[in-house]
Amino acid sequence: MSDLPKAIQINEEGPREGFQFERGLIPTARKIELIDSLSETGLNQIQVASFVNPKNVPGMADADEVVAGFTRRSGIRYTALWLNEKGLLRALATGRLDVKGSLSLTASEVFLKRNQNRTAAQDLEAERSIARMYREKGIVVDRTSIRSAFGCNYQGDVPVAHIVNLIGQLVELAVEEGFTIKLVSLADTMAWATPASVKRLVGAVREKYPNLQIALHLHDTRGMGIANAYAGLEMGVTIFDSSVAGLGGCPFAGHQGAAGNVCTEDLIFMCDEMGIETGVDLAKLIVSARLAEDVVGHPLPGSVMRGGTLAVLRAAIKTGAAA
Amino acid sequence: MSDLPKAIQINEEGPREGFQFERGLIPTARKIELIDSLSETGLNQIQVASFVNPKNVPGMADADEVVAGFTRRSGIRYTALWLNEKGLLRALATGRLDVKGSLSLTASEVFLKRNQNRTAAQDLEAERSIARMYREKGIVVDRTSIRSAFGCNYQGDVPVAHIVNLIGQLVELAVEEGFTIKLVSLADTMAWATPASVKRLVGAVREKYPNLQIALHLHDTRGMGIANAYAGLEMGVTIFDSSVAGLGGCPFAGHQGAAGNVCTEDLIFMCDEMGIETGVDLAKLIVSARLAEDVVGHPLPGSVMRGGTLAVLRAAIKTGAAA
Repeated sequence: MSDLPKAIQINEEGPREGFQFERGLIPTARKIELIDSLSETGLNQIQVASFVNPKNVPGMADADEVVAGFTRRSGIRYTALWLNEKGLLRALATGRLDVKGSLSLTASEVFLKRNQNRTAAQDLEAERSIARMYREKGIVVDRTSIRSAFGCNYQGDVPVAHIVNLIGQLVELAVEEGFTIKLVSLADTMAWATPASVKRLVGAVREKYPNLQIALHLHDTRGMGIANAYAGLEMGVTIFDSSVAGLGGCPFAGHQGAAGNVCTEDLIFMCDEMGIETGVDLAKLIVSARLAEDVVGHPLPGSVMRGGTLAVLRAAIKTGAAA
Repeated sequence: MSDLPKAIQINEEGPREGFQFERGLIPTARKIELIDSLSETGLNQIQVASFVNPKNVPGMADADEVVAGFTRRSGIRYTALWLNEKGLLRALATGRLDVKGSLSLTASEVFLKRNQNRTAAQDLEAERSIARMYREKGIVVDRTSIRSAFGCNYQGDVPVAHIVNLIGQLVELAVEEGFTIKLVSLADTMAWATPASVKRLVGAVREKYPNLQIALHLHDTRGMGIANAYAGLEMGVTIFDSSVAGLGGCPFAGHQGAAGNVCTEDLIFMCDEMGIETGVDLAKLIVSARLAEDVVGHPLPGSVMRGGTLAVLRAAIKTGAAA
């Protein structure tokens, strides 16, 4: 297994992804319960909330209370999402989050036009304003992300060269604003990626920017999440966003097409079995995954929490308890 | 994508896997309806029934009626499963099946002992009797399979060298009984495989038996099915067993650990998007997958039937209908 990385970094996004997309309001105390449970698993980065307009995302209206309420554990970076200065100020006001700046572009110009009524040039200028906002507040910007990097429901397939070009624009913009970009996150926002396209895009980005770290943000809408993660591992990717239990998605027909992130414990199971260190205790994470199902009140897509780990089976065999 | 095969062969096992493991009896007419639907999709091999003891597998008690009732379509091999001469005779009596012989060994000696009270040597001798049974009936034997080839819940991990050795025993036995083995199917019966172990085992088998075709029979109990199939494709594997909609498994907690096969339409989606021909019309197969859910009366694990295909999105974008 010499061509796979020795260790990876998991950025847990379940609380943010899940509570953002769930229908029906979840009590604040239960959100906090899940975050506290995740803090016990060995995960060292957990995205706990979204500071967005509660009119658009009612499930995140209690973001401030959630962040005020969970128990911080040392060694864990607790992060959040925001889309503008107002959101950033809310995040800063909590005093309990690891606040770093990131610059993002959307690969699909059709989607940009439809949803934000912006051209690509305007999108880039908006990121310049955001970079300046971070600079004024003394917040470091060292990462970028490209949304819909593998394809878009409104534009279709996105050429690899276009993504590489967008990354270049962000890297340059960052330099102009006094920042150095160390990482690019390639987001499969609409679940268009396959293992082959993951390899193609990661390869092209690495070729052009050999010093940039690459992260993958994968969705499992079409069942490709784990296979895409494996393709990323084969390309040496060591940073993955994922959601405990696959929060954000749902196997129910009633939640058709719900685009949950790739499931954290399934990803960790694969890594454990392939000798890749994650720092996470899979047994504890499965406890959190079951809690997540209980909190949202319906089945979630994760497989290993149902199928069980091999570590448990191996231990039972050793003690003669396999029955 | 030069290192992936140009085309693969899918052996659809949904009707057999699914109806065998479903709780509650499914009306014969509905089983036939699903088989007839699958016959319209471009699949060229469909396993339609199991001729096993109805006391052990009540869901297959109507196997004879199912096989008598479906509409044969030319160009499709309709196959079945049996475990002994009685089952074989029932399959032959239908006169409607593609009957070929196969020899199988179980990789786990602990499981053999527990479930069949046999040693490995006795298991091999039992296969010799089966080979002779086929010879007497004039039925060609040209394939083998190894059950639990990637690990076993009762024995644990299975060394690659042991699997290679078992294949050698079957190949030799076949020669002694006048047959030539062309194919070995590696079955991940208890869902222990990961992409890394798929690559290790396929590589070792190919190294030792370069002229044997390799098929993979993968289960998705721990969410590794599609990733394992991708690892197989990367190793040049071109034959896969799979189940429409992931029949045989269930995302419900009530069916905990149900070990459905890898889902046919998810596998075909991946192949379509990576330029690998399958001969199957994905849109038609999704119609069958939804029918399968209707027939069993509960959600099934397939993802693409919920998430939708990219072909549909691309077509809508072309005609300006993406909305």
